[in-house]
Amino acid sequence: MKLAMIGLGRMGGNMVKRLMQGGEHEVVAYDVDAAPGKALADEFQHVQAADSLADVIAQLPAPRVIWVMVPHQFVDGTIAGLLEAGVEAGDLIIDGGNSNYKEGQRRGAELAEKGVLFADCGTSGGVWGLQNGYSLMIGGEKAAIDLIAPALTTLASNEGKGWGHMGPIGSGHFVKMVHNGMEYGMMQAFGEGFELMKAKEEFDLDMHQISRVWQHGSVISSWLLDLTGDALEQDGDLSSLSDWMDDSGEGRWTATEAIDLGIPTPVMTLALQMRFRSRQKDAFAGKIVNAQRAGFGGHAIKAADD
Amino acid sequence: MKLAMIGLGRMGGNMVKRLMQGGEHEVVAYDVDAAPGKALADEFQHVQAADSLADVIAQLPAPRVIWVMVPHQFVDGTIAGLLEAGVEAGDLIIDGGNSNYKEGQRRGAELAEKGVLFADCGTSGGVWGLQNGYSLMIGGEKAAIDLIAPALTTLASNEGKGWGHMGPIGSGHFVKMVHNGMEYGMMQAFGEGFELMKAKEEFDLDMHQISRVWQHGSVISSWLLDLTGDALEQDGDLSSLSDWMDDSGEGRWTATEAIDLGIPTPVMTLALQMRFRSRQKDAFAGKIVNAQRAGFGGHAIKAADD
Repeated sequence: MKLAMIGLGRMGGNMVKRLMQGGEHEVVAYDVDAAPGKALADEFQHVQAADSLADVIAQLPAPRVIWVMVPHQFVDGTIAGLLEAGVEAGDLIIDGGNSNYKEGQRRGAELAEKGVLFADCGTSGGVWGLQNGYSLMIGGEKAAIDLIAPALTTLASNEGKGWGHMGPIGSGHFVKMVHNGMEYGMMQAFGEGFELMKAKEEFDLDMHQISRVWQHGSVISSWLLDLTGDALEQDGDLSSLSDWMDDSGEGRWTATEAIDLGIPTPVMTLALQMRFRSRQKDAFAGKIVNAQRAGFGGHAIKAADD
Repeated sequence: MKLAMIGLGRMGGNMVKRLMQGGEHEVVAYDVDAAPGKALADEFQHVQAADSLADVIAQLPAPRVIWVMVPHQFVDGTIAGLLEAGVEAGDLIIDGGNSNYKEGQRRGAELAEKGVLFADCGTSGGVWGLQNGYSLMIGGEKAAIDLIAPALTTLASNEGKGWGHMGPIGSGHFVKMVHNGMEYGMMQAFGEGFELMKAKEEFDLDMHQISRVWQHGSVISSWLLDLTGDALEQDGDLSSLSDWMDDSGEGRWTATEAIDLGIPTPVMTLALQMRFRSRQKDAFAGKIVNAQRAGFGGHAIKAADD
């Protein structure tokens, strides 16, 4: 099939490459930076670089299929640009990034007023997706999913098994959001376990060896464990890394959704909180507790300078 | 090599079978119930059933290698029985069950006084170990590990890659204990995520479909996810299962160890607490909170009969 890819960063660029590996697709590639589109067009016969959103529209046959793979703060601007450039009723815009599902529901409703189809696709697999294929969770009406299905089958892992139509608009990003919330919990469990083993000095344990033994036949064998083992192989103490844990939104949205629905999710929520804690250098909460301990118990308290 | 297997339940029995698949081992099989040993001896030429611990000792060449695979509350009794039956200096007893690592350290010290070698082996893989091989974490001195190594290589997953010598006595069960603590955290994260998706009624999500899409290329792909998908395929609502979550000790020991070492493990510990919570039908903590809400706020409180 022929489609446009808007946004040719790490994810969008790799997805174009994976579409080319499938051999049956044509891609119109566009990015605000002209270089990556040019590079892809030079590398692949079936990639044409576009130099503007108007050029994207001009190069696509109707109904147009346009995959938007940009940071979530640029999705609304990109959609507005596409509407201005001539997207028409019957065309399909897919947001493949990490937007909040409620934004997708709003965008879908706004586009529906113009007759433009919309789908929201959660994409997991990171930088390994190019080689292994992605896990893709898409939401939208069936007519929209049918338009993009051939590309999803090429992008997905395991000969197309790695994608699924989750439900209506919003459900793709909702499922991806929960996926990431679970990912936070799993990652925190891994972090805690390895930290506990490292702290057990009397056993002088080899973290890399343990990760490799667990990879083979243990209940916690997983892709995250594989990645952990690879990292520990390079640097057994992970001395090149800091312990500052960033977050990119989905964990927060998962915790908020759990509050909205009144569903207990202590592990996912606490994993998020531990990321917040990791960024504190001089936590006020700790000072409050110390002030109280000094006050009621006369406990010796570590001063700020110690 | 020739070794004895004491305890022929689900784990011990399957381990004898896997040793036979390797083709190079002889096993003296013993259980307090005579039936499983007899059945194994009937099935495999290289399995001899023993009818007592004395018979086990008599059938093994020195130095004897004796794998004990019994519930942790029977390990001390089994070791005492083996000593009485004639275990000698230079023989090796391996505890392959789920004992607390501190018990292993005590047993190792007691046996060392008699010159008997001891090793503690954590075994992961459950009922799938027979087919896929086990992940085996063993602790003990090198001379002990060398004696059992050929059997470990056959038992382990991926042509022997799934076993490793962790460190001194105690370290095998310590690493297995932390493995299970991490497993609790991961399982709780999975539980919370699926519960949250199920509660999002507007999307009417298909839990089985989601588990399958995630299996292919997602960051949380794992053996636990595979098992979850298999269960959801049989029964999409898991309506045949209760939500009572049992625990078998390792999660508690992990939480206690974290307290002893002063290492924060909120996710592993909270996953354990959620198992406790799952078993409460009429939590007193809830009544206390309700009494307080009624007292200070005049809030309407659900009565016990509602």
